[in-house]
Amino acid sequence: MAVGKDLEIITIGDELLLGKASDKHLGYLASRLNRFGISVRRSVVVTDEPEAIETEVRASWNRSELVVTTGGLGPTADDCTREAVARVLGRELILDEEAKRDLEAFFRQRGRPMTQNNLRQAYRPEGTELIPNAFGSAPGLWCEVDGRILILLPGPPEELHPMVENEVLPRLRERGRLEEAAPCVEIRTAGVGESLLENRLEPILARYSGLEIGYRAHNAIVDCRLSCRDGKYSREALEEIADECAEALGEDFVGFDGQMLSKIISDRLREREQLMAVAESCTGGQLASCFTDIPGASKTFAGGVVAYSNAAKVQLLGIPECLLRQHGAVSPEAAVAMATAVAEKLSAEYALSITGYAGPGGGDPQNPVGTIHLGLHSPDGVWSRRVNFHGSRATVQNRAVNGALDWLRRELAKTAIANAAK
Amino acid sequence: MAVGKDLEIITIGDELLLGKASDKHLGYLASRLNRFGISVRRSVVVTDEPEAIETEVRASWNRSELVVTTGGLGPTADDCTREAVARVLGRELILDEEAKRDLEAFFRQRGRPMTQNNLRQAYRPEGTELIPNAFGSAPGLWCEVDGRILILLPGPPEELHPMVENEVLPRLRERGRLEEAAPCVEIRTAGVGESLLENRLEPILARYSGLEIGYRAHNAIVDCRLSCRDGKYSREALEEIADECAEALGEDFVGFDGQMLSKIISDRLREREQLMAVAESCTGGQLASCFTDIPGASKTFAGGVVAYSNAAKVQLLGIPECLLRQHGAVSPEAAVAMATAVAEKLSAEYALSITGYAGPGGGDPQNPVGTIHLGLHSPDGVWSRRVNFHGSRATVQNRAVNGALDWLRRELAKTAIANAAK
Repeated sequence: MAVGKDLEIITIGDELLLGKASDKHLGYLASRLNRFGISVRRSVVVTDEPEAIETEVRASWNRSELVVTTGGLGPTADDCTREAVARVLGRELILDEEAKRDLEAFFRQRGRPMTQNNLRQAYRPEGTELIPNAFGSAPGLWCEVDGRILILLPGPPEELHPMVENEVLPRLRERGRLEEAAPCVEIRTAGVGESLLENRLEPILARYSGLEIGYRAHNAIVDCRLSCRDGKYSREALEEIADECAEALGEDFVGFDGQMLSKIISDRLREREQLMAVAESCTGGQLASCFTDIPGASKTFAGGVVAYSNAAKVQLLGIPECLLRQHGAVSPEAAVAMATAVAEKLSAEYALSITGYAGPGGGDPQNPVGTIHLGLHSPDGVWSRRVNFHGSRATVQNRAVNGALDWLRRELAKTAIANAAK
Repeated sequence: MAVGKDLEIITIGDELLLGKASDKHLGYLASRLNRFGISVRRSVVVTDEPEAIETEVRASWNRSELVVTTGGLGPTADDCTREAVARVLGRELILDEEAKRDLEAFFRQRGRPMTQNNLRQAYRPEGTELIPNAFGSAPGLWCEVDGRILILLPGPPEELHPMVENEVLPRLRERGRLEEAAPCVEIRTAGVGESLLENRLEPILARYSGLEIGYRAHNAIVDCRLSCRDGKYSREALEEIADECAEALGEDFVGFDGQMLSKIISDRLREREQLMAVAESCTGGQLASCFTDIPGASKTFAGGVVAYSNAAKVQLLGIPECLLRQHGAVSPEAAVAMATAVAEKLSAEYALSITGYAGPGGGDPQNPVGTIHLGLHSPDGVWSRRVNFHGSRATVQNRAVNGALDWLRRELAKTAIANAAK
């Protein structure tokens, strides 16, 4: 591995170690820097105690050519990354007059008073450079010593992201630290367990020695990642192997490189100039979000109804009250009625519905917690399907959403084949 | 600090360092173990390379009395935590016959074939104990040496969570490792910046020496955490200080201990036996999710409409097409019409609406990306409010949702005061 291509991340913040927030920085930094050949080798979360920060920064700085810290740059008394780094570097903290003026301007622009504690943010260790923060008051810090680089970034993602894009990546590029990443192809599958997938792919992958293979299961989806760091396989070679795997997997194959189920559905529908809609109960808007999170989805996603209460099912969707009374809101009949109703309301060719008990409470003798009824409306008819999931409310919800999406994906693939055969 | 109360977590998985998934284990383990007096001091994510795992486990095991690893216990070739830990402990891996039988039963029950690679999961280092996995094939591992404990947990959350609840916590309790946590109170605020909040609370908090104070800002909400580890302040004493802060903050004070805006709204409405509904465009179901994620919300949350396209606004909500043509779908007029329409459809006293450009694309000259119009319908009338947010699509969406929720929270607080005064 090339020198200086390995990154260590140190994330500062008691709130993560207290379980009050989740670490989003690793995911962002990794996916952003990976494509430029920088690999995150290690990521550590530490308390915001000055000694803890100093210990971790010192260890990483002694070992690694590229270190990034996030957090602890703000104005409050528990922000002390700046001071810890000054000690590791053995440099004095000095007031940066330009940063002071920028800070004053920042507060003036927003019409907010600049309190005294904010001034701490204008200090930097001697011989280092402040990185402007376009979306917040705390500047970042760029420390370069004998070709080794230590970068201090602010904690809030809405400040960190633009700073990385507009300041950090250009500086790394100038210094020749960015290159093309090692080739990697990801094969996404649905409806197959992780070890069964490995067994199905093994006969193919065993023929290619030196291939790096990784599996990841998440909510009824399993990704198989093929990569190669020693140059033996090019991106094109990996793609050919992946194609071979995809063919062997048949309709359990979803797509390459993290393609989302909702994106595949949206693309298929756009090709056909057809619309879809959703009606959901216990997933409360999550199925709809899968589509509204895709840029340009409004061309194929007509809309959705969160029919959590029976009243909403009746008033927004026009489902007969007697149907809900007779069969219950968690039933195949309700799932079918929800899918059909929202499809008709929005003149959509396809519709998905979800109704069930995501837990932790609820459930009835026929439908214990974790029971979900999915509905699918298509130009060919309307069906329901009963599924059962274990786990927390969020797990049941995520699996229900993926189950519904995968059903529609397979349905669209099937009719595409039928159309092609005509 | 008591010996053996500090925990280090080692999370194994290339997928986290590649940015393909986010670490959910730290948050769960921290919040679960914290209430029993166990503090997470450090959490590190490493690659799934055997040497990397071995190095980190060895370092933590030499330093800490309590170490947890997550991941790398599965059946595939890239799962090698078990082997790395055996090397650190200097023990042989042996086949556990009971675990082998359990594995065979697991696959029989699910009607899935048990492939040869699954058998690896029945091995354990000599002198250690397998922890049964009720929701997956990979058992955990419990290693205890001279009062120090190393626990290996599986990666999938739906397997890890029940294993912690049903196996790990009871074992720690038996061994006297669980106690009451240090007292802590969290003051949640909305609509005040982090440093301004510190300034407003400083005159109060400065009077109490030895108090630990931490601030956390997230999507227009700022939490101030008061805690005390040395026994100087009891939980009751912290609550009194927090009450004083809450009073000083007036209506910017939201609640204590991470209370969610949607939960507060839901509670207020339940007291009054009133209903609310939502209609959202660019947040695509996220506003609705805030309510369906609260157990028992169906008593106050009537339902929601994801009116992403103009057609949905017309067909599901009955908004006149001419209104959308004249003023545009992103306008105060549209926000007002959406809130009123969904309130009327669902016979709800209150309704919130969100329409805007969350980005990255979209926007028009009057409404650049990040512009959101919120609508609030109440028994007293209907209003719109224009807000502007910077950042990614997700940031804009989250802030829009919190902005809408906080508006309704303040409105409900106001009318509560007015009612009380009558």
